[in-house]
Amino acid sequence: MTDFAATKSMFHLPEGVLYLDGNSLGPLPKAAPGRVAEMLGAQWGEMLITGWNLGGWMAMPMELGDRIGRLIGAEPGHVTVGDTLSIKVYQALAAALALNPDRRVILSDSGNFPSDLYMASGLVRLLGEGFELRVVAPEEVAAAITDEIAVLMLTEVDYRTGRKHDMAALTAQAHAAGVVTVWDLAHSAGALPVDLAGAGADFAVGCTYKFLNGGPGAPAFIYVAPRHAGNALPALSGWLGHAAPFAFDLDYRPGTGVERMRVGTPPVIQMTALAAALDIWEGVDMQALRRRCIELSDLFIAEVEAACPQLTLASPRDGSARGSQVSFRFEQGYAAMQALIARGVIGDFRAPDIMRFGITPLYLDEGDIRAAARIIAEVFETRAYDRPEFQVRQAVT
Amino acid sequence: MTDFAATKSMFHLPEGVLYLDGNSLGPLPKAAPGRVAEMLGAQWGEMLITGWNLGGWMAMPMELGDRIGRLIGAEPGHVTVGDTLSIKVYQALAAALALNPDRRVILSDSGNFPSDLYMASGLVRLLGEGFELRVVAPEEVAAAITDEIAVLMLTEVDYRTGRKHDMAALTAQAHAAGVVTVWDLAHSAGALPVDLAGAGADFAVGCTYKFLNGGPGAPAFIYVAPRHAGNALPALSGWLGHAAPFAFDLDYRPGTGVERMRVGTPPVIQMTALAAALDIWEGVDMQALRRRCIELSDLFIAEVEAACPQLTLASPRDGSARGSQVSFRFEQGYAAMQALIARGVIGDFRAPDIMRFGITPLYLDEGDIRAAARIIAEVFETRAYDRPEFQVRQAVT
Repeated sequence: MTDFAATKSMFHLPEGVLYLDGNSLGPLPKAAPGRVAEMLGAQWGEMLITGWNLGGWMAMPMELGDRIGRLIGAEPGHVTVGDTLSIKVYQALAAALALNPDRRVILSDSGNFPSDLYMASGLVRLLGEGFELRVVAPEEVAAAITDEIAVLMLTEVDYRTGRKHDMAALTAQAHAAGVVTVWDLAHSAGALPVDLAGAGADFAVGCTYKFLNGGPGAPAFIYVAPRHAGNALPALSGWLGHAAPFAFDLDYRPGTGVERMRVGTPPVIQMTALAAALDIWEGVDMQALRRRCIELSDLFIAEVEAACPQLTLASPRDGSARGSQVSFRFEQGYAAMQALIARGVIGDFRAPDIMRFGITPLYLDEGDIRAAARIIAEVFETRAYDRPEFQVRQAVT
Repeated sequence: MTDFAATKSMFHLPEGVLYLDGNSLGPLPKAAPGRVAEMLGAQWGEMLITGWNLGGWMAMPMELGDRIGRLIGAEPGHVTVGDTLSIKVYQALAAALALNPDRRVILSDSGNFPSDLYMASGLVRLLGEGFELRVVAPEEVAAAITDEIAVLMLTEVDYRTGRKHDMAALTAQAHAAGVVTVWDLAHSAGALPVDLAGAGADFAVGCTYKFLNGGPGAPAFIYVAPRHAGNALPALSGWLGHAAPFAFDLDYRPGTGVERMRVGTPPVIQMTALAAALDIWEGVDMQALRRRCIELSDLFIAEVEAACPQLTLASPRDGSARGSQVSFRFEQGYAAMQALIARGVIGDFRAPDIMRFGITPLYLDEGDIRAAARIIAEVFETRAYDRPEFQVRQAVT
């Protein structure tokens, strides 16, 4: 059994804060500062360049990849860590297109995270005539999977609403139509059980600073299915994806498997913080996490809806169709979220009108959910969002 | 005047080590662990998601870019930090090609760092028919600049030999032939004065973990000349390069200037260590550093050549034609470097036969250079490299 009181105790959670934004940036694992200090002092400081071997730095992308792989149902040795999620999207898309050379259409949906669409459009523009990014509404994806499509690129869980695609069903349908799949797990990894191998996914990518709690700017990951790992031709053919990086050959020869999706020198300090965060996941059963997440989310929805008739649920009401977040629509959502943050309830706002709350059982319990709902009720009863100080928009949130 | 005793005191240098490998990974700035601990505890820990604003994280790529820009002669506001150098090479190349749409050849040289060539070949393959990466010997570059060339991509200082290209002359020649330039400053930034604006360079990229001492996996940087910054079309069109990342538009609109070369979420922990490293550069005059570097390098060459007739100088003898490193060829160079490392003199080996020593006045003084030369002399007098334990090659160095 997963002991969620124990996992909660492993995080630093500031006094007076109820943190419902782990879907954007997870909180600090208490072990992370010590691990990073050790890496800086005893490794960088004392080992200097030899840290790449003696400190195990060079092996970290694959080691961390395997630890993440366990949470997303990947075969061991088929996930590697590095770069940002947008870069990993580009790599997966380019390799997926190359596996389907007679087709030129990438299919995605308007619920995808914009950066995935931006990266796809940049790639399509570079590839030139005939290549196309086709974006449909999330509910129209299944009907749009035809034998014209080269690659289906979807984010499993919608970043705004938490609406969850059926990965297994869409992947099966895609394969039946000869379509290669790229799944973005940004709001899935560490949020709910994922079974990449079972679903037969071709490529998957994700980030580690949200539900995995790797810290601001933590590196991304990429999965390539074993059947593709030796064929996927890297568009971003960097030296650390070379079969022999330190031979310094003038010609590129890709590494054996997903290793070829490594590009440049990996971010050792960020990976060290991520390693500390992944330690917390060692004892976590993803099925238990999922049950707890749905219980807490259902409770949150019930409490908020009872107290705040102004809010409209934007997430699916059925917990099994939802990721690990609950969103409500409200016209003054930006100001309302500012009012909540001023009271220590931290969620976030996504344009145009989404108030988004991450429900993360690793460090939120029933008491936290009830307390957050009470404060939300108070903000809406008092219309605190009407106050001028909450209207001013900041550059970023 | 630059006080090199003062800068030396700002680094942690292990007891018994003479570190001549700052051209691969700079040593730990003493201030870095404290700065990182502060960022982890007071910012990530306490500010959580609001650190992107309150902690200034979102502004760091441009702020750090400007601090690096001062060292490489860039106009303020035209350098940004992020990703790895290989990614930045790809971005610069793709944008440079797009600025020269009637031509399809990238010209580079065999002294370029292999990853730059790999990234170029990946891009050329993606772009398809007609696109070509042409690689000539370093001394043949000038003759190969013709009106067939779209982009000239060179690393200013050769990673093995330290041989330095004449950036101003080659850039002028390239422009006269209608060629766009991409300069890799991996072995230039923090190593010698660079004058990007004066040379009229179009694009430049570099890394921050070598001479700038940003730490293992520190992010890269990219410069786009002001005349191109508003036209350079990003191939890697990520959300943080969007004109309004937090509007979450479905369509990509590039940011105003070099900001469009940002891609994904920047690595805040790595950037914090880099910020501490850049503090040391605040008081450094690059001309004074260059003079000191050539003095120390000339001394090193003289001492080593006097004692080790087995070694052949691989670097230019003329200091002004050399970067901030000195390399020697020796058939048993790998074993000899292992023997040196065992005695606390840390340089590195680059296949097939290069022994490479970084000469970094920021933390190496005349006493260090003389002491290192004495130990090198001893290794060669005693043929310590013949010992079996130094023959075994490790996976990476």
